[in-house]
Amino acid sequence: MITRLDQQIAFLNEADKLKSIRRATVLADRSRAENSAEHSWHLTLYALVLADQAKQSVDISRVIKMLILHDLVEIDAGDNPIFGNVDVAAMEAAEQNAANRIFGILPNDLRDELYSIWKEFETAQTDDAQFAKSLDRFQPPMLNLVAGGGSWTEYNVTEQMIEDRIGSKIKIGAPALWDYARAKISAFFKSAT
Amino acid sequence: MITRLDQQIAFLNEADKLKSIRRATVLADRSRAENSAEHSWHLTLYALVLADQAKQSVDISRVIKMLILHDLVEIDAGDNPIFGNVDVAAMEAAEQNAANRIFGILPNDLRDELYSIWKEFETAQTDDAQFAKSLDRFQPPMLNLVAGGGSWTEYNVTEQMIEDRIGSKIKIGAPALWDYARAKISAFFKSAT
Repeated sequence: MITRLDQQIAFLNEADKLKSIRRATVLADRSRAENSAEHSWHLTLYALVLADQAKQSVDISRVIKMLILHDLVEIDAGDNPIFGNVDVAAMEAAEQNAANRIFGILPNDLRDELYSIWKEFETAQTDDAQFAKSLDRFQPPMLNLVAGGGSWTEYNVTEQMIEDRIGSKIKIGAPALWDYARAKISAFFKSAT
Repeated sequence: MITRLDQQIAFLNEADKLKSIRRATVLADRSRAENSAEHSWHLTLYALVLADQAKQSVDISRVIKMLILHDLVEIDAGDNPIFGNVDVAAMEAAEQNAANRIFGILPNDLRDELYSIWKEFETAQTDDAQFAKSLDRFQPPMLNLVAGGGSWTEYNVTEQMIEDRIGSKIKIGAPALWDYARAKISAFFKSAT
C-alpha cells in the first residue's frame, strides 16, 4: 500500500539526481563544473535579490517556484549548453517526456500543480516566466565574468554570440540586467584581446 | 562609483561559495558528500511538495525564502554536522558575524529584508520558521535511508540519538513527518542488526 507521503518522498528522492547533472558553467573559483541543483538554488537567490530589476511587475514567489522546478527534466534529458549544437525539437520532446515521468511520481494534485508551474516556465508567455527565464540566462555570464571567461573559452564564444543567444533572452524579462551584463561582457572581451 | 546593481551582484557572487561547503550527508547514490547549496535547493523542493504536512497553517512562499537563505552563513562559519560535537554558543556567534558580513554586502533595504528572514529562521518562533526548521532536519534522514545509512555510519549514530537530536525538532513543525521518519528509521536499524 503506497501512501500519499510515500509518493511525495519518492519524488524528492528522485529529484536528488539533479545534483549529479553537470553544467557547462564553472564555479566562480573555477574549482569544478556547476551542477543543476546548486544552479537552481543560485537562481532562487538571484530572484530574491534582483526582483526590482524585472521589466514588468512580477510575483516573485511564483518566479522562485518556477526556478526551483525548471531544471528537474534534466534528470532524464541532460543539460544542453547554450553554446552547444542542439536539436531543439528533439530536446523539447525529451524534456516533455521527462516532465511526464518525473512529475508523474507525485500524487495527482501535486503532479498537476507542479507540472503547470514547469510548463508555464517553458512556454514563457507570462511576465513571471519571462523574468525567470531572464535570470536563467543572466546567471551564467555573471559566473563566467568572475571565473575569467569560464565556459566561454571552452566553447569559443564571441561577444556577438552572447548577444544573440543570451542577451536577446535576458532583454525580454529584464532589460536593465542585459544593459549591465553587456557593458561588463564588452569590457571583458576588450581586456582579453 | 559602486551602483546598487554592483552590490546585488557582489552578494550573488559571494553566495557562490556555498556550493563548496561540504555537509556530512551523502547523495542518495553515495557518490559524494552533499554541499550546502544543493541541500538548500532540495529543501525548497521539500517545502513545495510537503506543504500539506505542516503542523500549523504556513505561508509556503515565506518558508521557501527562509530555506534559500538559511545556510548562507556557513560560507564563513562552516557546516556543523548534527551528530558532531559543537560548541553551540561559539557556533551561534560565528553565524551571527557571518550574517552581518554577508548580508551587509547588499544595499541597505535588501540587507535588512533578507537578514530579517534569516533571523526569523534562526530564532524559530514563528510557524513558518518552525516548519522550515523541521524540513531542514527531515531531509538528511530521508537521504540516509536511501543511501543505506549514509552519515549515520560515519558518526556511529543510534536510533535514540536520531530521536533526541532530530525527531525532537521535526515534531515541532511537522509531527506527521516525524511519525513517518521514525517508522522508516526503526525498520532500517532493525534490518541492519
